[in-house]
Amino acid sequence: MSRGLLMVVSGPSGTGKGTVCGELLAQTPELAYSISATTRKPREGEVDGKNYYFMDKAQFEKMIEEGGFLEYANVYGNYYGTPLGKIEERLAAGEDILLEIDTQGALNVMKKCPDGLFIFLLPPSIGELERRIRGRGSETAESLAKRLGAAKEEIAIGRKYGYVVVNDTVKRAVERIKSIMVAEHCRVDKNYDIFEELEQ
Amino acid sequence: MSRGLLMVVSGPSGTGKGTVCGELLAQTPELAYSISATTRKPREGEVDGKNYYFMDKAQFEKMIEEGGFLEYANVYGNYYGTPLGKIEERLAAGEDILLEIDTQGALNVMKKCPDGLFIFLLPPSIGELERRIRGRGSETAESLAKRLGAAKEEIAIGRKYGYVVVNDTVKRAVERIKSIMVAEHCRVDKNYDIFEELEQ
Repeated sequence: MSRGLLMVVSGPSGTGKGTVCGELLAQTPELAYSISATTRKPREGEVDGKNYYFMDKAQFEKMIEEGGFLEYANVYGNYYGTPLGKIEERLAAGEDILLEIDTQGALNVMKKCPDGLFIFLLPPSIGELERRIRGRGSETAESLAKRLGAAKEEIAIGRKYGYVVVNDTVKRAVERIKSIMVAEHCRVDKNYDIFEELEQ
Repeated sequence: MSRGLLMVVSGPSGTGKGTVCGELLAQTPELAYSISATTRKPREGEVDGKNYYFMDKAQFEKMIEEGGFLEYANVYGNYYGTPLGKIEERLAAGEDILLEIDTQGALNVMKKCPDGLFIFLLPPSIGELERRIRGRGSETAESLAKRLGAAKEEIAIGRKYGYVVVNDTVKRAVERIKSIMVAEHCRVDKNYDIFEELEQ
């Protein structure tokens, strides 16, 4: 039984991580999703325990103290974190796990899990990124400018990742991520058991 | 323009390299095939300049002296080699090139082109490998035993490759190789141009 993949999908705010990961999960039933915890307010349609574990600040900080997060970060005044829970156990059992987190969180996971699979999602252009952030409709002019500036800074961080996927269309981005998963499972160091079997 | 992939598909004798690479090329018109040269006799149906460049020993040795091969090897008394030709020029122009060569040749290419993409094709089992070599019908009992022994030794070499693909069915093996190609094109070091564009 080879170890599962810890697949981290991340990228600047507004690149469409949520949509891409949702479609990826729908097409890949064997991929398990690690639900993040956050102190930010739910957006319309978001469900507690499905999109996020919504917590208040006190609950979140208690969990930090108890060492309950693989990583956590404070983004625009809100906490986001990955509950450690059963991640390690599930990877050891061969399950692939998807983490959808922001770039700050991904950098922390890189330190703790350098053998993870780090995928950076990019918008096809800066113009398209602006359009997407505007389209979300939850931004003031000030917060839009702040987010765009932050996004450009975040893009530079992508060079530290293993893979980069341009989200030109959700369909193509999902296909590319699925290909990366297949390829990673074909890496020689994931298949020593096959060699041992054939060489007997 | 990012550099093309030098994709080396290799594996023990009888794993079905030829069939898998043929189907891969049929499905991937943008993939260019590097035709090998050999001094072995053509098998039924093989065409000079398509399957191989068939040469006599004197021609082949002259080309060795002139430095005309990326790699060459002597396998079971026959020469096999990869004509250098326009490979470097085509990679620089962004073309992906497929080399289908034996394990000995692949080890030589690894030394010269460590940034190549090395895929080791495996039979699903030793029993299946024996069946396939027998099925080719061109083997005596002695040469069959020789080939099987050599195949087991060659399998160990696969650990030096980057990827391993089990040829359980041609369809699935081809799908896996196509996924590996997509994934390799998503590697961050193949996409620095996108970062530069977005950061302007």
